[in-house]
Amino acid sequence: MLTGMLSMLAVALPDKTCAQSKHQMVRLAKLVIDSAQLEPYKTALKEGVEAAMRLEPGVLVIYPVAEKDHPTHFTILEIYADEEAYKAHLQTPHFLKYKTTTKDMVKSLELVETIPLVPGLKIK
Amino acid sequence: MLTGMLSMLAVALPDKTCAQSKHQMVRLAKLVIDSAQLEPYKTALKEGVEAAMRLEPGVLVIYPVAEKDHPTHFTILEIYADEEAYKAHLQTPHFLKYKTTTKDMVKSLELVETIPLVPGLKIK
Repeated sequence: MLTGMLSMLAVALPDKTCAQSKHQMVRLAKLVIDSAQLEPYKTALKEGVEAAMRLEPGVLVIYPVAEKDHPTHFTILEIYADEEAYKAHLQTPHFLKYKTTTKDMVKSLELVETIPLVPGLKIK
Repeated sequence: MLTGMLSMLAVALPDKTCAQSKHQMVRLAKLVIDSAQLEPYKTALKEGVEAAMRLEPGVLVIYPVAEKDHPTHFTILEIYADEEAYKAHLQTPHFLKYKTTTKDMVKSLELVETIPLVPGLKIK
């Protein structure tokens, strides 16, 4: 029986060790913000991102950029370790605070599910 | 005169030490690829990205994603240490090879200059 369990473990392990890049959830969020509320929006987003990066190991990155020519247009690259990490993120106090604070600042939100071409890449 | 030079240096130094995030060049490249050439395009892009990440310290990241619902639509987050790093990148053999190889595969290319909200972020 122990042998059986060990062989199950051996089969399970390779999958486990690859979990971070195999099951990653990578997506783009595209937002347009009310120009009259741009500064408070940026403050709220920054606070939410910094808390998620500090407190959630499964949030691999949330990287927001604003377009130089359209400063109210944001694109956010979001990388979660897996779907569970994403679901946990949605329940965190900092995410719920961001959502509540910004709900009347966001004019549009589009979520685009993606596949990374080179999943293991880091920012130097 | 030495004192004058030293005080110039003292003024110059703080700027130097912040160079990486202060002068970063961050942008999104948005591409649509000919569907008949999608696989060779992905191979060429992957090769170009991996060479740039390995060989160019000033390429902080080139992170390409394809949309799940439109696999020929790519968005690439590109972060360069500064404009010089970007100009140097354009002259590298691997970038020139990517450009030549893919020139008839790319149906459209849009380059969007951006400002990162939290410049120092890393991917865990």
